[in-house]
Order: sequence, then structure tokens, then C-alpha cells
Amino acid sequence: MLYLDNAATTPVRPEVLEAMMPYLTRWYGNPSSHHTVGEAAAEALADARARVARVLGLRPADVVFTSGGTEANNLAIKGTAIAAAQRREDGRVHVITTPIEHESVLESVAYLERVHGCAVTRVPVDAHGRVDPDAVADALRDDTALVTLGYANNEVGTVQDAVALGKLLRDRRVPLHLDAVQAAGWLPLSADELGCDAISLAGHKLGAPKGTGVLGIRGRIPLEPLLHGGGQERGRRSGTQDVAGAVGLATALELAESDRVEASARVSALRDRFIARVLETVPSARLTGDPVHRLPGTASFTFAGTSGEAVLLELERRGVVSSSGSACAAGSDEPSHVLVALGVAPEVAQTAVRFTFPRWLNASLDAVADAVAASVAAVAEPGR
Amino acid sequence: MLYLDNAATTPVRPEVLEAMMPYLTRWYGNPSSHHTVGEAAAEALADARARVARVLGLRPADVVFTSGGTEANNLAIKGTAIAAAQRREDGRVHVITTPIEHESVLESVAYLERVHGCAVTRVPVDAHGRVDPDAVADALRDDTALVTLGYANNEVGTVQDAVALGKLLRDRRVPLHLDAVQAAGWLPLSADELGCDAISLAGHKLGAPKGTGVLGIRGRIPLEPLLHGGGQERGRRSGTQDVAGAVGLATALELAESDRVEASARVSALRDRFIARVLETVPSARLTGDPVHRLPGTASFTFAGTSGEAVLLELERRGVVSSSGSACAAGSDEPSHVLVALGVAPEVAQTAVRFTFPRWLNASLDAVADAVAASVAAVAEPGR
Repeated sequence: MLYLDNAATTPVRPEVLEAMMPYLTRWYGNPSSHHTVGEAAAEALADARARVARVLGLRPADVVFTSGGTEANNLAIKGTAIAAAQRREDGRVHVITTPIEHESVLESVAYLERVHGCAVTRVPVDAHGRVDPDAVADALRDDTALVTLGYANNEVGTVQDAVALGKLLRDRRVPLHLDAVQAAGWLPLSADELGCDAISLAGHKLGAPKGTGVLGIRGRIPLEPLLHGGGQERGRRSGTQDVAGAVGLATALELAESDRVEASARVSALRDRFIARVLETVPSARLTGDPVHRLPGTASFTFAGTSGEAVLLELERRGVVSSSGSACAAGSDEPSHVLVALGVAPEVAQTAVRFTFPRWLNASLDAVADAVAASVAAVAEPGR
Repeated sequence: MLYLDNAATTPVRPEVLEAMMPYLTRWYGNPSSHHTVGEAAAEALADARARVARVLGLRPADVVFTSGGTEANNLAIKGTAIAAAQRREDGRVHVITTPIEHESVLESVAYLERVHGCAVTRVPVDAHGRVDPDAVADALRDDTALVTLGYANNEVGTVQDAVALGKLLRDRRVPLHLDAVQAAGWLPLSADELGCDAISLAGHKLGAPKGTGVLGIRGRIPLEPLLHGGGQERGRRSGTQDVAGAVGLATALELAESDRVEASARVSALRDRFIARVLETVPSARLTGDPVHRLPGTASFTFAGTSGEAVLLELERRGVVSSSGSACAAGSDEPSHVLVALGVAPEVAQTAVRFTFPRWLNASLDAVADAVAASVAAVAEPGR
């Protein structure tokens, strides 16, 4: 079985689990406890924090450990908007995003609209899923508290020009939050280079366990916590820290960073060959997302005239596990909001199939491309 | 080294880690994915959910997996209050709690006051830390959205009469949330028996890893999520579920429930003997919390005239690891808000020492009591 749904989740890397084990066994202390048992845990947590900070180009104090990418996105968006709103007399602020973001971004923004009376601008994207940084700049208002953008899209793999946007926003002094959940491990993450003020990661997309995440956020950005309580994480995220999880995330992130450039180049080449072969052999195949600015590990298509679900089942029969798009939306009857925003007709959007590759991929995907062709043909056969 | 700070955190039980390992290795799927890899994870999650529901006397659909007790408390309190407020024309509701709650409760309530304009009544407790159910009933208003109460206090171990309160509130149709983070494993947790509508647990107090928790909440209670996104956990808590963590929590909870009555009786007896010996041999010792209605595993004292921190250090030199109170507040210079609410003078509150025992305790604590006496004597010596 070939698992090509790595954007949904990845296996825990053996080195990561090994690094975590001491904190699931012998070093079990609460890092807030002031005794030797707690101090051992606190040291491991501080070390993990420093390691994450190094990859993100932030200070350790800017690293907030969360329970995952969804929490990191919710915290970045609600936390900055609510904190900014409290500083304004009318208690309302403006947030900018795009229509192709992950549900954790779109629903956080919708919550701010619905419950906190925030104004929201959703800047459109082009047919490849790219947002024009100037269009974002044009949408800025005096009360804009945040621009939140997916660094790379989870369904179609389109990579945004974060650097250009960051530069524009820095001049305008509006914080930029990047949802880097899918980008992590493939693209540069240094907040300074990117010009962003906040960045979200999810451990389980990187070879760390589910239930781990990070929001890197510059200390100067006021942030209302989502989780109030004992004041852990410098008051920005209360709750006893998952020390083992933090160690796991730091280890996975460092491992990914250590061979990121090489892995991205290697996997991009194999992906391009795969895409070309699918487009060549399957007449109904259309690539979704940007042909150039895309995640090394993502190949996504529509197969008009078929059913995406049926193609997935045929592929699974042939030993290839893939998905229609976001796992979070799996099972939904709605066409993908991402593809619809890219201008794909709803009935075509429902034929989407996404292949997301592991970073260790090192052999041709020709057999997978052939399985795709055979699966689409099998589904398209009349009478089936 | 004898670790007597089990209220801060507990080691992961070997059986729990063993139950989790398959989901940290082979069965790595995203439970929302619609393929064989995801389905294996989804089955494990459903099984864990059913097992937790059984112990809580709730339906599986009432179980919301969270990242810990702090998140469970935040979700219960903010989630019910904000959902109720949205259903009212003035957008404001009333919440009842007490002054001795965990920080995650007090700070969640304070957030509702500060940001959502909620009204809050903090019903006083008696000198033992018990709240009078009739006083809570007297505080009810037409717009009361929630009563939130610690089933057992984390610093002094006082157990509330949840059943009496639940009965009163059920008649008045006001939801009762119990923070059972410290009670779990020691006291009955069945929501039906307790008459509560929502109950919070933290895995790491029970022998499961940090970063795991549960909010059990009846489906009929409207709940605004804290984490918005992909709609996991029936839309009440988005984010890819930590399958291994859920399996670990369920396993730990079932293990604790299986010998709960026996462990509670055994540890209570050893605790009583320990308390008696400390009170007998240390003239300055005063028991804090309720002498009768207290957690089996908690013995908490003040030692007027000493420094709590100095006693803790002396105890640690003698091989006994304990704490001044909540790990979340460790390092704070403020006297415990719990002890102050119980009427303890601030300078005495700062001499607090809490011993929290493991559930497997089966031998006399006389040597620990003697170490306490020696430590207090060492600290009290003039000139030291």
C-alpha cells in the first residue's frame, strides 16, 4: 500500500518517537512544578522551544506550543483581532484573508464576524489560487488588525508570494499571519525572511504526533489567549504543556529543516514527472493549483466526467491511498470551497483527487500515474 | 525519591503507553480520512470515545476530546455562556462559580466578564472550602447560563456536595459544569448520578499523557466552540484528533475506574494516618480543607511561622517531592487564592505544603510524616 495522503497526516518518524519516549516515561514532571521532577521537564521544554525558535527565526519567547495547527490558527486570528478590538473605542476591527484558506482560518474569521462584529475582507485569488499582494494592500483599512494567509494551500498546493506581501504589510505596520501547516518541511520558515509576525505549524504534518502544534508570534503583537488559566506559555496559552509532544515537534521540525532543500528539489522533480504523465495519459485530467508555485509534495487534479470518490476507491484497490482534498472536509457533499474559488465548476470540483507525497520519496511515480489512468478509465466505463 | 505531587501530574502508566503505541506507529491515519488508513484511526477513536462515555455515564456523542483540563474548562464555560448569550437579545448572561476554583475556571469566567460583558457571581465557601448548594440556588437569576464548580479542589482536596447541587439546579434547569480534573480516579464520575451536564477531565492527572483531556457535555446544551475549523468532534472542537492520546486517556480512565473504590478506601486510610501523625508531631501544622469531605490522595497543611518553600526544599533533601499547591501557580509570590478564600491569613497561606499521593500507595507514610516534622524543625530553627 502506498500512502499518498501526507497532507492529511504523516506517520510519526521513528527518531521523533525515540526523542519523546523519555518524557512519556522517566521524565514525567509538570514543567511548572518547582522541584527536581518538574525542572527536568521544564528544561526539555525550554530546549524544544529554542529549537523551534531557531527554525522559525524567532526568539524562544515567541514560540507558543499549541495542540495543533487548528489551535494555532484560531489563536493567531482570534487572539490578535480580539486584543486589537479591546484597544479600540468601538471594539471592532477588520481582518483580511482569502476564500481558499483552511477551515480553521475561515471559521475563526467567521466567528469574529458573527460574535465580535468584526469586518472581514476576503481578497479573491486567481485561477491558480494565487493572491495578488497589491490587492491585499488595497484592502487595508485603518482598523485592519491582521492579514491571515495560507503560505501554501492544503488542497491544491499553491504557494503564495509571502515575501512580497510581508514587505508591503510591514511598511503599513499591519501584522501578517501565515498558516504554514502545509508549507512546513518544504518551504523556508524564517519569519524574518518571510516578513511575517505570526506563523502556525502542525506537528502531525511533519512526522510528529497529532495533538502538537506551534504558533510562533512576535512578542510585541498583543494577543488575547484562547485558553485562559495558569498562565503557561507566558500567559498566551494556559494549560500544562505536553512536554513529550513539544520535544517531538521540535525534533520533527529540525529533521525536516535539515534536508528541506534537498527533499524539496528531489520530490518536486518526481512530482513534475508524475503530473506530466497523468496529464498525458488521462484525457479528462486537469491540474489544479499553480503549475509553478506549488508545494513539492502536492499533485492535484480534477477528472471531469468521473466521480472523485469512485476514482479514490479504484486507486485504493490498486494499492494507492489518496484523497479528494482536505481530510477535514472528507465526507462532505459540498464541492471544495478552494476549487470553487479558483473558478472550477462545482460538478468538476467534485471529481478532485489529491496526491501528497512523503518527503523521503525517491523513486519514479510512473506506476502510480498508470494506476490513475487505469482507475479513471475503470470509473469512466459506461455501465460501471 | 518519593513523588508526592500527583495532583500536579502523574507518570504515564505503562499499560496506557502500551495501548497508545500502535497509534504512534503503525496506525497513523487521520480519523477524518475516508480510506483504510483513516478508518483504522477512526475506529480506535470511536472505541476510546465509547469507553470514556461509559465511565462518565454519558453517550459517546457527548464526549469531546480536548488537549487537557484547561481546554475542557475553557470550552465548558466560555462555550455555554457565549452560546447562551447569542440566544438573548441583550447578548449577556450570568455565570455562577466560587472563589476557590482552578485558574482555568476563574480566568475563563473573568474573560467572559471582561470581553463579553457577562455578570458573574462568586458564591463564597466556608472555612473548609465547601460551598452551600442553597447559596448557589439563591444566586440563580433568569439569565444564569451556567454554574461551574470544582468537584474537588486542587489545592486542599475539599470535595463538594455535587449531588445536592445537581439536584437543585436540575429543578431550576440551569446547567451544572463540574471540573473533575482532580476528582477523576478517586470519586464517582457518572454524570447522571452527579446530576451534572458537563464534566472536565485531564489525562495527565490519571496516568495518561499531558496534552489529553475530555469535556463530557450533554448534546442538548448549546456550545460555541473554542476551536473552529474542520468540524471534528461533531463541530464542538475542531482540529485533527490526537488518536493515540484519546486511546491513552480512555485506557487510563478505565484502569482508574476499575479499582477506584478500593484505591480510594486504601489511600484514604493511609492519608488519615499521615495527617494525624503530622498534626501530632508538628505543633505549627494545621490541616487545610475539609477534614472529612476530601480527596483520598490529598493532605494539605500550613506551617505557620515557617516558609513553605523552605519546607519543600528540606523535604526534597530528605527524598520527598511535594508542592506548595497548584503547579500552575508555582513560583507566584501571591498567597494562594484558595487559602485566602478559606479565611487563612496571607502570611500563613504562604506556608502551605500539599502532599498528593499516587493511587497505588499501599504502605504507611509514617516516615514521610517524620520527614515533615524534621523539615519544619530544620526550617524553624533560628538562624537558618
